[in-house]
Amino acid sequence: MTSTPARKGVAVLGSTGSIGTTALRVLERQRSLFQVIALTANSNAALLREQARQFAPAFVGMVESADAGESWSSGTASLIEAATRSDVDIVINAIVGAAGLDATLAALEAGKRVALANKETLVIAGELVRKATEHGRGELVPIDSEHSAILQCITGRSRAEVRRVVLTASGGPFRGWSPERLATATVEDALRHPTWRMGRKNTIDSATLANKALEVIEAHVLFDLPFDAIDVVVHPQSVVHSFVEFIDGSVIAQMSVPTMELPVLYALTHPERVADDSLAPFDPVKVSPLTYEPVDHASFPALRLGVAAGKAGGAAPAVFNAANERAVAAFLDGRIGFGDIPRGISSALDRLSGMKSDTREQLLEADRAARCHVSEMFKC
Amino acid sequence: MTSTPARKGVAVLGSTGSIGTTALRVLERQRSLFQVIALTANSNAALLREQARQFAPAFVGMVESADAGESWSSGTASLIEAATRSDVDIVINAIVGAAGLDATLAALEAGKRVALANKETLVIAGELVRKATEHGRGELVPIDSEHSAILQCITGRSRAEVRRVVLTASGGPFRGWSPERLATATVEDALRHPTWRMGRKNTIDSATLANKALEVIEAHVLFDLPFDAIDVVVHPQSVVHSFVEFIDGSVIAQMSVPTMELPVLYALTHPERVADDSLAPFDPVKVSPLTYEPVDHASFPALRLGVAAGKAGGAAPAVFNAANERAVAAFLDGRIGFGDIPRGISSALDRLSGMKSDTREQLLEADRAARCHVSEMFKC
Repeated sequence: MTSTPARKGVAVLGSTGSIGTTALRVLERQRSLFQVIALTANSNAALLREQARQFAPAFVGMVESADAGESWSSGTASLIEAATRSDVDIVINAIVGAAGLDATLAALEAGKRVALANKETLVIAGELVRKATEHGRGELVPIDSEHSAILQCITGRSRAEVRRVVLTASGGPFRGWSPERLATATVEDALRHPTWRMGRKNTIDSATLANKALEVIEAHVLFDLPFDAIDVVVHPQSVVHSFVEFIDGSVIAQMSVPTMELPVLYALTHPERVADDSLAPFDPVKVSPLTYEPVDHASFPALRLGVAAGKAGGAAPAVFNAANERAVAAFLDGRIGFGDIPRGISSALDRLSGMKSDTREQLLEADRAARCHVSEMFKC
Repeated sequence: MTSTPARKGVAVLGSTGSIGTTALRVLERQRSLFQVIALTANSNAALLREQARQFAPAFVGMVESADAGESWSSGTASLIEAATRSDVDIVINAIVGAAGLDATLAALEAGKRVALANKETLVIAGELVRKATEHGRGELVPIDSEHSAILQCITGRSRAEVRRVVLTASGGPFRGWSPERLATATVEDALRHPTWRMGRKNTIDSATLANKALEVIEAHVLFDLPFDAIDVVVHPQSVVHSFVEFIDGSVIAQMSVPTMELPVLYALTHPERVADDSLAPFDPVKVSPLTYEPVDHASFPALRLGVAAGKAGGAAPAVFNAANERAVAAFLDGRIGFGDIPRGISSALDRLSGMKSDTREQLLEADRAARCHVSEMFKC
């Protein structure tokens, strides 16, 4: 008899959300390699209970409810507890928005691999995350499909060989719309994403291209690339997830049918790959033609606003992210129009980019100020 | 003062041909890293003389002429001499056709890196080449754009992670032609390749898709892949040079504008990359749309004939290659029609696939028999 290699322990933060449930599908298939140790959710007790029954994790936490008739941990402290347990090797951070920051920092300080779907973390506090990674000897691996693509394209190669990356953007449901037509866009229109099924916040970010700004900043932090080495191209089919151009002019791209299961799996197994037959074999004929278009910056100003915030640094990225989160929530509530989202972001950046940004507290203060600014601006 | 690192010595066999002149353009730009030690050509004394003046190599050989008024080596022995010199680290084998085999074997036995544009070598004698590589601790690196693409996609990764490769084919000048229309194709038509500028033999092979059969066999030998893990797709733009599908379902592809300079450069620098600004930055918008089509096997039977020969093994690949070379030469001379090329190949395979194939001599005997068979068949 040979002993089976120890399975890696995994904590899934935000397990009832879009990425969380995707991650659990992957983990179900890969039970021989990974064991679910901890699950946390914000408030969906029914689904969390079902997941707990399926995976029998050692730890279950629910942030918003002290007790749903179970012996679960509660509050935001439960996120930190799940992320830092000694039997957890990998933390999948699928928490939506700025709430994911503390768990990421704690996990990195504790030397964990953090598989990060929560891009806001890197945007708000890229420098703090970098320091926590170094200090705790943790490891940051992206779950975003674009960044997973870049990681897959550069694995085994020297970073010094990378000249440029090109992130692909589906263009969202409003690709080809004029600024005038966009002014009339409804919430329903914006939630109708052509290729990706995601949570509501991310779907709206795809419609404004604010998500692509967040991803440019994320790529800057993750891969230590200057902003002028990060481009964006619209690719409506969402088959090519990003391009990497090397110093000799060669370009390597990663592709697959649009699914988050692959980026989740790769974040678990990087730098190796493991067999998984759930994806249909790649058929280039089926996905043909693959098209690429320039970004329409007049219709989608949020991208340039966000990239400018990234370049400015300091508090600006946190202000961009928070103003966007607040504006998107107001849009989803039907309280502001689609075009008000970039207007709110732009106004918050003009006013608040100069705020202090040296500490976590200062960054969260900038985050709060940006939310207030947008709320007051639109009386929402 | 710091000492500069020693430059690598390079021999270019077939320096006056299409790949040879491309290689010299690359080597001219990369003089700080590589030194041209040896040049050989078949018969183009004027161009060879010019190249010798430009690079001042220690060794110059011309196969077909004893003396062109220079102190050059001559005969096929000059190829072996160039390929095995102690001051040569890398041999670029850009000889067209079966004549390249002995130089490849000698260089590999001498422990050189062989940058191989001469795909016939691998097709005729894949097993011998593999043995010579192991025995002499040489290294085989492809210059073909498709195989360079595969190598670039798998560098730094484990071969066990590769599930399948998909070679792209431009489809050649006759893409979309029916078998009936193809029967009327002229030499001029066939030499009008839509995306690649190559020598005449390779251009005709592109028109019949025989080149893709050679490349499938080449991929089988180079990357130790079973034939059912090697697919072909028609990609008229020739921007994506091949796809690699991994065991987790992810696909990595390499792309660039169609140029042989990049595969030559990568064959010199693998597994690293060096800066080279000669290629225009990659612009996905400019190359859009990228399309993919299935191969039309009814119009282009040479592909299936060649892959079947590869699967059959033994003498069959050598017979396929030699019958094709002879038939292409006859077609270029205007002595047979376009459709006669696969007919000649098929007939030679039927008759000669069972010939002995254990030694270099037996393989060359099969090669000769296939040429004779085609000559007799068409009285050409």
